[in-house]
Amino acid sequence: MTDTLIIFDTTMRDGEQSPGAAMSRDEKVRIARALERMRVNVIEAGFAAASPGDFESVRAVAESVRESTICSLARANENDVRRAGEAIRPAASGRIHTFIATSPIHMEKKLRMAPDQVVEQAVRAVKWAREYTDDVEFSAEDAGRSELDFLCRICTAVIDAGARTINIPDTVGYNVPHQFGSVLRQLIERVPNSDKVVWSVHCHNDLGLAVANSLAAVLAGARQVECTVNGLGERAGNASLEEIVMAVRTRRDVFTCDTRIDSTQIVPTSKLVSQITGYPVQPNKAVVGANAFAHESGIHQDGVLKHRETYEIMRAEDVGWSTNRLSLGKLSGRNAFKTKLQELGIALASEEALNAAFARFKVLADKKREIFDEDLQALIGEDGPQGNDDRYGLVYLRIHSETGEVPQASVTLSVGGAEQATQSQGSGPVDACFRAIESIVHSGAELLLYSVNAITTGTDAQGEVTVRLAKDGRVVNGQGADTDIIVASAKAYLNALNRLVSGVERLNPQAEETV
Amino acid sequence: MTDTLIIFDTTMRDGEQSPGAAMSRDEKVRIARALERMRVNVIEAGFAAASPGDFESVRAVAESVRESTICSLARANENDVRRAGEAIRPAASGRIHTFIATSPIHMEKKLRMAPDQVVEQAVRAVKWAREYTDDVEFSAEDAGRSELDFLCRICTAVIDAGARTINIPDTVGYNVPHQFGSVLRQLIERVPNSDKVVWSVHCHNDLGLAVANSLAAVLAGARQVECTVNGLGERAGNASLEEIVMAVRTRRDVFTCDTRIDSTQIVPTSKLVSQITGYPVQPNKAVVGANAFAHESGIHQDGVLKHRETYEIMRAEDVGWSTNRLSLGKLSGRNAFKTKLQELGIALASEEALNAAFARFKVLADKKREIFDEDLQALIGEDGPQGNDDRYGLVYLRIHSETGEVPQASVTLSVGGAEQATQSQGSGPVDACFRAIESIVHSGAELLLYSVNAITTGTDAQGEVTVRLAKDGRVVNGQGADTDIIVASAKAYLNALNRLVSGVERLNPQAEETV
Repeated sequence: MTDTLIIFDTTMRDGEQSPGAAMSRDEKVRIARALERMRVNVIEAGFAAASPGDFESVRAVAESVRESTICSLARANENDVRRAGEAIRPAASGRIHTFIATSPIHMEKKLRMAPDQVVEQAVRAVKWAREYTDDVEFSAEDAGRSELDFLCRICTAVIDAGARTINIPDTVGYNVPHQFGSVLRQLIERVPNSDKVVWSVHCHNDLGLAVANSLAAVLAGARQVECTVNGLGERAGNASLEEIVMAVRTRRDVFTCDTRIDSTQIVPTSKLVSQITGYPVQPNKAVVGANAFAHESGIHQDGVLKHRETYEIMRAEDVGWSTNRLSLGKLSGRNAFKTKLQELGIALASEEALNAAFARFKVLADKKREIFDEDLQALIGEDGPQGNDDRYGLVYLRIHSETGEVPQASVTLSVGGAEQATQSQGSGPVDACFRAIESIVHSGAELLLYSVNAITTGTDAQGEVTVRLAKDGRVVNGQGADTDIIVASAKAYLNALNRLVSGVERLNPQAEETV
Repeated sequence: MTDTLIIFDTTMRDGEQSPGAAMSRDEKVRIARALERMRVNVIEAGFAAASPGDFESVRAVAESVRESTICSLARANENDVRRAGEAIRPAASGRIHTFIATSPIHMEKKLRMAPDQVVEQAVRAVKWAREYTDDVEFSAEDAGRSELDFLCRICTAVIDAGARTINIPDTVGYNVPHQFGSVLRQLIERVPNSDKVVWSVHCHNDLGLAVANSLAAVLAGARQVECTVNGLGERAGNASLEEIVMAVRTRRDVFTCDTRIDSTQIVPTSKLVSQITGYPVQPNKAVVGANAFAHESGIHQDGVLKHRETYEIMRAEDVGWSTNRLSLGKLSGRNAFKTKLQELGIALASEEALNAAFARFKVLADKKREIFDEDLQALIGEDGPQGNDDRYGLVYLRIHSETGEVPQASVTLSVGGAEQATQSQGSGPVDACFRAIESIVHSGAELLLYSVNAITTGTDAQGEVTVRLAKDGRVVNGQGADTDIIVASAKAYLNALNRLVSGVERLNPQAEETV
């Protein structure tokens, strides 16, 4: 019998700390449902104490998911732990994940606490957490630069206090596999009550080694890996869920464990996360990149590659690559539409929301011959964090662009319900359109990023535009999809502005503790 | 004294085997110059025997570069080796890299040769190669699935025959670090003449382990790593040059060797390769991703992160991240323009090409306030593989798009010198524009990919559009840049069409050997 390797997904907590990747409550619920379908064991849904919005998101995920454990992060203080405990209360299975830094530099500079105090605080936090759930995880932040003796001491203490999972993070992505594996091996050997817990790792990818470090820890006895879809996460990101899962499964001869993941959900979930966060996946990304499997990349090599199995170690269909599934057409009715959304795990809040989405679907179906699952995901994603409560909406747009003339845009927006119209010139039609919007809105935001990807192939595909705006140190991403790239751009810009005014924001639980 | 780790870049050979990443001769020369500036030791410029175009590209690189060794790949047959030898003849330092498969499945199914014959053929190939250069590399294809005894035997024989580098590839990306390290360690121990060569590895990233496998081999004694900029390469790509270089340098305490790479050239080279191939780099990519360093991603965390060094293990400026360098403005003259191109390593073929580029620069400077290095790279990149010999050119474009109406495009093209005009409708202005072009050109190509990235920030940034077309099993990428996204799209589409008709094509030296 092979051991179980627990997959702990932190796309919605560590992944959300990527610039502009903050997710609304509804977006988190959609991602959580996809993770549940993929059979992720533990979903870290956020950091409940960060803000009322974060609390609500974690609680909404806890209410929506039945098959995965729902977890909230909490610093090792009473308020954080109690907020986390409250947020996960509706979960069928809930976990509190509390952490404190254990490296000399972090204890001294950030916490300003003596080692004894750090141990006491960690033990107290675990005990508070146990008032809410038996499933308590403790992380030793910056473990990679902590003293092994001290790590052994604090781990022993928190296990006695009731922690059931001990997580060893490589917070700054500094470790190399054989070393990191050795740290885990020593901890498991030296901590006297180590057999009472599951050992876990959380690796960052700054040197490109997050997956390898995680797997080295698994070989040393770790049985939980913290990871994210598409390797999203702070800086260069975390270990990629899809690479961990497929490495362990493809090399079961080496790893004596396996996950319970339904790997056919990997690619659909990757696409959903990419669409919601606005973070693209590069074509040469392992497992989920468009080129990862040669015959999916558009080259018809069959005539050349007669013995494909001599070059392929995984099958594309095993990770969910398939030809675009035709979802619906122009003649599909409201019921078929609703059923398809349910299949995709999308539950709309109200009949009004469903009607509005169906109306958008009909408009799209008039313009686009075939409607794919990806088109529907984008259609639903168009509702901003506030849905119909958005401050800014696009009413009318006209573009004229001609060789030798300056591009012109005329725009009518709804602003808090009232319509305002203007026109503007620009260096291109997108520039003209953004200038027209700015001349109404006066946000003063800086445009950091503009990108477009076609959602499906073919010239009538929808363009999905991502816009990243910065203002006063806050960064938001906005998305918009349309068969008209300028309309999609306007929608994305307005979506970002709505997020700016809505105050959707995420704090970094590690950084903000810094003095 | 630390050992030298040799960096062997194969962006222009294995990287070029990515769908649509075929490079023209001039593009290869530009990339080669960037690699030389980065102080790469060996540049694999292509596969000379594949086609006359490939031969010319390798030879042009060999003529242009003085500080790096220039290498051509060659199968283990006389024609391939002699073509490689001819192509590298102009190089200051030239290498021939010959390979043959050594795994039972490849020898039987692909080569249809007995093991004895494979050894004889490999020895012959190395001896032919030595007629051209002392610097001969031998690769045992699919070494990861070869029998160790046979590997030892063939390595011993080719070293006796004069090979100076032995490369062990993980062709299908199946290995895990501790195993792969062990293979290298055993080979180095067991091959009796192993001290006469540099041991090398070439790892693929299908399970996300290419960098870790390469580093495990370095720990076991390998002193050359084959890698690519941005991890480009077949399927999920190769080991990333930037991750290998920075891992070894950041962890010099673990690796007792270092490269001679000028790491400040990493980010500029990454951008150049991305621009030429049309392959984007995801933001959460280690080292070269836009978010890899937190303070480069647009979040001004200085107020929060007081002790940045507690979270950072590399400095952004050490790998070449810097604020966009303002290159030129509207008033810059032809001489300043020429000097700046030289600084960027761009040498135009003729005075006419320089004049044409300068004219394009002036048009751009009228539309865009500030011109950055990236804008100039895109400006030069606009010349297709044939430069002024392109079959299709854009003469005139008019777009009208309005809410509630069907988008319209009017297009005038030059087709082999004669002008043709038409107009078309579409589901968006890009669709309308592509349909108009198709109604003139009738290529019948399938649009596989459409993406846009802003080259710099700000609303007047140029949009850089990548279009991937497929026809009759061939796949090409086209690029176009303009402040007007529709114009950029039209340029990209025409660029791809010009590549389709030009016959720029790459063969896979491994696959095509397949019976």
